[in-house]
Amino acid sequence: MSARLEAQFAFLNEADRLKSVLRATTLCDGSRVENSGEHSWHLALYALVLADQAAPGVDINRVIKMLLVHDLVEIDVGDVPIHSANGAAHGSADTQAAESRAADRIFGILPNDLRDDLRAAWEEFEAAETAEARFAKALDRVQPVMANLQSGGGTWTTYNVTAEQLDSRVGAKIAKGAPHVWAWVREKTRLYFK
Amino acid sequence: MSARLEAQFAFLNEADRLKSVLRATTLCDGSRVENSGEHSWHLALYALVLADQAAPGVDINRVIKMLLVHDLVEIDVGDVPIHSANGAAHGSADTQAAESRAADRIFGILPNDLRDDLRAAWEEFEAAETAEARFAKALDRVQPVMANLQSGGGTWTTYNVTAEQLDSRVGAKIAKGAPHVWAWVREKTRLYFK
Repeated sequence: MSARLEAQFAFLNEADRLKSVLRATTLCDGSRVENSGEHSWHLALYALVLADQAAPGVDINRVIKMLLVHDLVEIDVGDVPIHSANGAAHGSADTQAAESRAADRIFGILPNDLRDDLRAAWEEFEAAETAEARFAKALDRVQPVMANLQSGGGTWTTYNVTAEQLDSRVGAKIAKGAPHVWAWVREKTRLYFK
Repeated sequence: MSARLEAQFAFLNEADRLKSVLRATTLCDGSRVENSGEHSWHLALYALVLADQAAPGVDINRVIKMLLVHDLVEIDVGDVPIHSANGAAHGSADTQAAESRAADRIFGILPNDLRDDLRAAWEEFEAAETAEARFAKALDRVQPVMANLQSGGGTWTTYNVTAEQLDSRVGAKIAKGAPHVWAWVREKTRLYFK
């Protein structure tokens, strides 16, 4: 038992480092960039509040579980902004391989049952094949859009993003998991891009 | 529908401000103080990882829901550290009244069904009467202990906390919701306080 607790807390202490991983997106007030720990909290709250926008039958608790662990690999790899390298860095084969090694190391700190359980949640999120994962991905994409709208442009300005790039890099993923949300949010973004 | 989405996103944008509420506790590496947004994420992850330490029958998803919303009132009231004012400020009648007004305002931004649902989760956490709330409270108390152990004293040094004060202000609450965790963590704290 105490070896188990030792491993559980070693993982939770390691996870603390996600609070020091910086994203490209700022807070809504533009005061500083967001870190991946607080971003993960915000997304879990998004899931609670926007649950009625998920496809029928979606298990919102599994969505929340995915969102709580989805960025842990960034402790080793860092955040790769969607719009960086003209949209080519995020999801590249190199990034995926590095993230897989990070998952081995970080989830590997846990007792085996928990390692397998949380690793599976991360894999499900990455694969984006289940309705739960598609909704989780949609939230992960829409939250920075809201921050950019609040802060007056944010990463769209940083990376000279066009309306068409927003639609293809971001909107398509949101539309897959939360179509009504994208229809509503897209309208708002047209005011910025006009 | 679009009025509903407007209210849901107004709440989620307001919640963003929790990332700017600073706590007394530092990150595990001592580099800076923690904010209440990232703290809330860390606690939800604690619940996922330490679920086997909850009382039999505890619904861990309700624990996570409580933890995701438990600090939102701090947007208006700020964080009141456990050990500040020699342990007398946290949970005072004045603080409770201010937090209740904050809950009215912040949860009140939501559509009524969501307002009632998330407000109820916050009230349940505050009352600490259900097994779920007691486990959530235990996690809220144990996470800063782990940060202090990692960072070499943290708020125990800041506020000149004694081992007896830690037992009464913090340990008693952890023991109520997660007795084995407190037995294990208390041992570790004795090395610091010896």
